[in-house]
Amino acid sequence: MNKDLNKKNLDFFPSPSGPNKELFTALNKTSNLLCEWFSVSEKLDPLANNIKFKFSSPTEEGKNFENLLKEINDLVYSSFNPSNPGSLAHLDPPPLTVSIIGDLVAGSLNNNLLAKELSPSISILEKEMCEWFALKLGFGNKAGGIAASGGTLNNLNALVSARNISGFQSDPDAAFVVSRDAHVSFKKCARIMGLKRENIIIIDTDDCGRMDPLKLENQIKKHLKIGKRIFAVVATLGTTMRGAIDPISEIKKICNMNNIWLHIDGSIGAIFSMIKKQIKGIGDIHNANSITINPQKVLGITKTSSLLIVKNIKSLQETFQTGLPYLDSNDEFINRGELGIQGSRPAEIIKLWLGIKFLGESGIEKILNESIARRKLLEQNLNSQKFDIYSGPLHIISFIPKTLNKIESESWTHNAKKVLLQNKFMLSRPFYQNKFFLRSVLGNPNTQDSHILSLSKLLNEI
Amino acid sequence: MNKDLNKKNLDFFPSPSGPNKELFTALNKTSNLLCEWFSVSEKLDPLANNIKFKFSSPTEEGKNFENLLKEINDLVYSSFNPSNPGSLAHLDPPPLTVSIIGDLVAGSLNNNLLAKELSPSISILEKEMCEWFALKLGFGNKAGGIAASGGTLNNLNALVSARNISGFQSDPDAAFVVSRDAHVSFKKCARIMGLKRENIIIIDTDDCGRMDPLKLENQIKKHLKIGKRIFAVVATLGTTMRGAIDPISEIKKICNMNNIWLHIDGSIGAIFSMIKKQIKGIGDIHNANSITINPQKVLGITKTSSLLIVKNIKSLQETFQTGLPYLDSNDEFINRGELGIQGSRPAEIIKLWLGIKFLGESGIEKILNESIARRKLLEQNLNSQKFDIYSGPLHIISFIPKTLNKIESESWTHNAKKVLLQNKFMLSRPFYQNKFFLRSVLGNPNTQDSHILSLSKLLNEI
Repeated sequence: MNKDLNKKNLDFFPSPSGPNKELFTALNKTSNLLCEWFSVSEKLDPLANNIKFKFSSPTEEGKNFENLLKEINDLVYSSFNPSNPGSLAHLDPPPLTVSIIGDLVAGSLNNNLLAKELSPSISILEKEMCEWFALKLGFGNKAGGIAASGGTLNNLNALVSARNISGFQSDPDAAFVVSRDAHVSFKKCARIMGLKRENIIIIDTDDCGRMDPLKLENQIKKHLKIGKRIFAVVATLGTTMRGAIDPISEIKKICNMNNIWLHIDGSIGAIFSMIKKQIKGIGDIHNANSITINPQKVLGITKTSSLLIVKNIKSLQETFQTGLPYLDSNDEFINRGELGIQGSRPAEIIKLWLGIKFLGESGIEKILNESIARRKLLEQNLNSQKFDIYSGPLHIISFIPKTLNKIESESWTHNAKKVLLQNKFMLSRPFYQNKFFLRSVLGNPNTQDSHILSLSKLLNEI
Repeated sequence: MNKDLNKKNLDFFPSPSGPNKELFTALNKTSNLLCEWFSVSEKLDPLANNIKFKFSSPTEEGKNFENLLKEINDLVYSSFNPSNPGSLAHLDPPPLTVSIIGDLVAGSLNNNLLAKELSPSISILEKEMCEWFALKLGFGNKAGGIAASGGTLNNLNALVSARNISGFQSDPDAAFVVSRDAHVSFKKCARIMGLKRENIIIIDTDDCGRMDPLKLENQIKKHLKIGKRIFAVVATLGTTMRGAIDPISEIKKICNMNNIWLHIDGSIGAIFSMIKKQIKGIGDIHNANSITINPQKVLGITKTSSLLIVKNIKSLQETFQTGLPYLDSNDEFINRGELGIQGSRPAEIIKLWLGIKFLGESGIEKILNESIARRKLLEQNLNSQKFDIYSGPLHIISFIPKTLNKIESESWTHNAKKVLLQNKFMLSRPFYQNKFFLRSVLGNPNTQDSHILSLSKLLNEI
């Protein structure tokens, strides 16, 4: 391809003096392609069967946009299809419409949430959005927070802060506590923080998948006695396997007695605190020192959208602030790159802002309530004679035929997953308590009652 | 607003059975707004003078899209304006056109780079893009990498891996080395990793802002003697203050002698290795164990776009892999959430892929060469009798009148920045070696020679 062709239909950068007609046309063509993909997503499979897309190296002269559009088309139709009503495997929902628009705006602005000098209005937006969430969660007036690119980062932000505020920064005896059903990424956090493997104190769960408070109390006593410096207890609000909620009030009492920071990993479940008729176990979350909340899950704010809300915003500042000697800083505003692990960050908060404003509190509640109702409908229609069913108060359910041992569970789930995919249902196949399960996450707003009835019928017959 | 109004013009989620006309219209209206903003960006100020945007809380019923569009408009026109030709303060360039399109695609797909099951084609794309960069950087065939949401995360990914591979995971004597001019975020990395403050070994720089290899050798000897376990030396390829490049070949020899991991923080400068006529000091980067490269800087891939390339991809796997018990994994493909700190991640790699394919190698080279040429032009036209000038081989330059002491430098830069902003030039005001400076980063492709001549004239006269 020659240079003329390359430059024919689109400039490298938007022109600062207009008219940018070619960019507008390119955005329209891409929007059209994406809207067409959305419009057939029910007909396509949840997982692309036919991977058309193939990576090819960049050439010397570059490709023109029309040719790239064909490659975009192949990439899109070879992707996971979260809008298909049968996409029920994981916690990744279809994107909220205004959230897609937010991505377009954030990319175009290319502002940097590192510092107010680089994102004058959006840094304030992020601060105020976090404060609004803090208010909704019942935190006090010293509370605030930070957005991060994913829940793992926010859990890490919280643990690093807890260790720092407790004064055990480089102490080889520093330790934290999670339940057996907590998210696997806490192992990763420990490695990053330089903690010994044995300093992740793991507490058994009860029959409902919740941390056992009596065992927690005993383990804390035991570990303090041998010289461990416990800087945090992590309670899970919504476990990966079945959406179980740890007993937060009881855990908080134990933390208070021992002067330990309580972090709630609410990546899955904290958003459900927005429902007016409170879900069992979600009360008292305002008593935590910090909480991770991920609107990128059920609400469909596009990835990534995760907030860490802390009781006292100063705990983040004291932990992460290094000074930014290359920036003009205004004393009464904390640069937001100094409140967490990330420095330069995109204006992701725009997506959350647009999403929340568009849905309104009633829209949020509708989405959350409907996802719970879908889980209940599936649970009611699964044959309880046949299946061991693991669920909780949220939108997640896992199950396995009662009679199977480990090896049988592996082959049953493997075969069942295949049969389901042939019928356009994608479920996941987690390994838990020495068996394979099937799991369904019912956050997909396109899943109708009729789909759930077909799914349960299929499952009962496999 | 009543519920009917709210739902009148846009659904919460794209419809899986079409026609999604309202979403297409909403995307068009937003594209139009953004293209209009781009088209007047030369007339606007680099920093919005008039902050119209004001955050208001979400309401019970939610806002309709037309009303939100007005708020988006206020937000956009209150933002930092990187497309203005005078935006020369920081490392944040205008967005590449196809990169904006990439954000739109990534948001719409909402695929999750955590695992191949959730992003079948894009996980492969990320792997192959990293391998293509590894090849361009001269790394061998065991090399590979990971994308992360920002350079700080990738430097942290590298340091955690270096510590892990060295076997000093929880050792209170673990230490790493940086130069005095390295990025401030390494302090933050040390806190996150639980390293003592004194275990960041800081090496003085020479008159050109480069790490002094003799001092490096002496400091390593001294610290090993007192029992420190040095797991990494970080060389900076492009310092924040003046784009200096540490002497990589000499540092590598010292690392080899002591069996220490060499990480290159190439967040600013590594992309310049793509220029065919090699820049002084960039040779030999392929000898490093790991390197951070940020196409979100000069190339204008929208934030965030940062890669970590490692000599041996297994070092990331061994460091971060925890297993993902809730996912179906394919043995011959490493799930990409297991190669770094982040778990769930957006399909950011699409932006880099589109950018590189669209520019081609010649387009990349053009952008990089022109940014260096702009720095040279400014440097030539600054009065060298008046200014102490700090620069290097890249696109960054800092300066201060020769005669000023610390206090005078503070007031001079403060006033100069104000005068420049009145003339639509935004420079930054870093603090370095006990003085305030003015700094110009010349990565903005909209900055013409005429702008640079006006800028230098202004500066020479202030």
